[in-house]
Amino acid sequence: MKILIAPDSFKESLIALEAAKAIEEGFKKVYPTATYIKIPMADGGEGTVQSLVDALEGELIEVDVKAPLGNKIKASFGISGDKQTAIIEMAAASGLHLVPPSKRDPRKTTSYGTGELIKAALDLGVKRIILGIGGSATNDAGAGMLQALGAKLLDHNLHPIEPIGEALINVRQIDISQLDPRLQGVQLDVACDVDNPLCGENGASAIFGPQKGATAEIVQQLDKALYHFSQILEKSLKLNIREHAGAGAAGGMGGGLLLLPNVNLKAGVQIVMEATRLAQYAEQADLIITGEGRMDSQSIHGKTPIGVAKTAKQFGKPVIAIVGCLREDYEVVYDHGIDAVFPIIRQLASLEDTLRLGYANLVSTAQNIARLYQLHH
Amino acid sequence: MKILIAPDSFKESLIALEAAKAIEEGFKKVYPTATYIKIPMADGGEGTVQSLVDALEGELIEVDVKAPLGNKIKASFGISGDKQTAIIEMAAASGLHLVPPSKRDPRKTTSYGTGELIKAALDLGVKRIILGIGGSATNDAGAGMLQALGAKLLDHNLHPIEPIGEALINVRQIDISQLDPRLQGVQLDVACDVDNPLCGENGASAIFGPQKGATAEIVQQLDKALYHFSQILEKSLKLNIREHAGAGAAGGMGGGLLLLPNVNLKAGVQIVMEATRLAQYAEQADLIITGEGRMDSQSIHGKTPIGVAKTAKQFGKPVIAIVGCLREDYEVVYDHGIDAVFPIIRQLASLEDTLRLGYANLVSTAQNIARLYQLHH
Repeated sequence: MKILIAPDSFKESLIALEAAKAIEEGFKKVYPTATYIKIPMADGGEGTVQSLVDALEGELIEVDVKAPLGNKIKASFGISGDKQTAIIEMAAASGLHLVPPSKRDPRKTTSYGTGELIKAALDLGVKRIILGIGGSATNDAGAGMLQALGAKLLDHNLHPIEPIGEALINVRQIDISQLDPRLQGVQLDVACDVDNPLCGENGASAIFGPQKGATAEIVQQLDKALYHFSQILEKSLKLNIREHAGAGAAGGMGGGLLLLPNVNLKAGVQIVMEATRLAQYAEQADLIITGEGRMDSQSIHGKTPIGVAKTAKQFGKPVIAIVGCLREDYEVVYDHGIDAVFPIIRQLASLEDTLRLGYANLVSTAQNIARLYQLHH
Repeated sequence: MKILIAPDSFKESLIALEAAKAIEEGFKKVYPTATYIKIPMADGGEGTVQSLVDALEGELIEVDVKAPLGNKIKASFGISGDKQTAIIEMAAASGLHLVPPSKRDPRKTTSYGTGELIKAALDLGVKRIILGIGGSATNDAGAGMLQALGAKLLDHNLHPIEPIGEALINVRQIDISQLDPRLQGVQLDVACDVDNPLCGENGASAIFGPQKGATAEIVQQLDKALYHFSQILEKSLKLNIREHAGAGAAGGMGGGLLLLPNVNLKAGVQIVMEATRLAQYAEQADLIITGEGRMDSQSIHGKTPIGVAKTAKQFGKPVIAIVGCLREDYEVVYDHGIDAVFPIIRQLASLEDTLRLGYANLVSTAQNIARLYQLHH
């Protein structure tokens, strides 16, 4: 028997590789001689670098970059074992967690550091970059990232604008002729799971601004700045990004990235599944086990287990999910390829203890699933 | 497909019949046309009357009895639908919960009310009485129960002793010739899951006295009284109950019951399984589901799911347990007939909320077990 184990991380408890190992350990108590394929998964959000580095037997590279407020920090990105693919999380350089709560103000933050991570990946000669853009502190339409890669965003004095949200209103001209030429030879897959437009009531500022520290007034100011930026883009480059689905992701980073060559905005789980060749493994497996920290009705919107399940169902394979917690409204997952789902909590305890027991509880649940599956198999 | 559902209660959350209904509801979502046999189970402890009344389609009878401190209370016992079997819990008349904590003193409590319940059952003309003796407040060797049924426990003035623990020391003569003659025609099955002797360091007073309110000094006093009582029994009736396994159960109630005719001390779950004809149903079933509120390594000592599992395994049938919580050390249950076990908790919440969600969580878990079981079945 061949068993494919492809879970996401169990947030705050287990990274995806640990989760996969725990599931394997439980199953091996019942099927010691089965063949196990472990593929740590992710959905483009937090944990994507770790999971893909593990899945692609790669390593982490640490570089100096600018944090959202401009101070220097160390940030890591991943590179696959074959050195062909870099995996970057925007949050590593430009994440909201890098700004102290008292200083959170998306008028003042820059995505510059993410551009530096992309540059560092280009320095390594990769052919492909996977970029997850969740968790950002910014609302600068990727202006900082673009400047770090050589784009010119100029004010009326032809000086570069400061690459922060509130300064976009000053841009008068955009010139991408000096973009790092190595970008031409690289495929840039952006993991983007929202389809918000750049501006307006569903735009970057209105929807994501408040969680980054924007008041209603600041939201208006930033929305105006993004709109202005998109108008200049139209004038300078004949490029209209305003209504592009996903342009509003990560404070307009989704839109700013559209100025780069060879860019695809795609669902994070799709990118991860392609990078790990999940479908090939699923086709060969007899049983697929996936999982994540929490499953609910929202899981059908781009979360890892559903992506895995849909891939498995292309080949008619059974899919079992194991999850940290399972919310009341989860049953819709049955319609999206999950055959059965089991939560791992074995008794009431503090959150801290429950997270600490994650590995043991996951082993135990996997073992019992295997025991039940074995009846008549 | 024929599915036998035979869970114990999920204490503080679901009585056994409710648990069985929840499991059926979950399975029916997957196997709507299967045949379901629901048998609420119990292990002779709390909930046994309810479960057997439900299983045997009986009813509850309420009577006036003496509480452990002598005051009058209402207490219920069960009678089967065919009126042949009464089911009594000693705790209903003589339970520790009937004594306010500040008044708990096993020198002062009587099992008289339990004797009155037995008498009330005899009044109904039953052929069999099932008596669970867990949870008592007493240490009177069943003296109260015996007096209620006509036995004479006399002091040196040939007056009846007061039927409480500390008064046993005064007994000089025991005469059972006046016992209720109807007892001769009745089988009395006593659910008794401990094998403690009457006296000594493993006896009733030493082991169970403290939880009933006895200090170390009182334990000594009561142990001496039980010993004296057993000596008088030997003299009066040539009956040595001192070393009889189980004589120390329920403050010596196990021993006192040995003075009655047609008495068997047996494991509670065995009695319940016989009364419900569980083996017959298990033999005809394709799959057996059991469960209880909490499973751990102690579950192999006479708890319901293991009894059910062992019965099912006589016929080689698969057994799945569903439990409220599952302690670290549970895996030994695999060696006692449980094929797989699943806890029902789906997320961390307060104990109160978790107990309230018991039914929904049990339905959900049963549904997922059924979905997993269905793969390739």
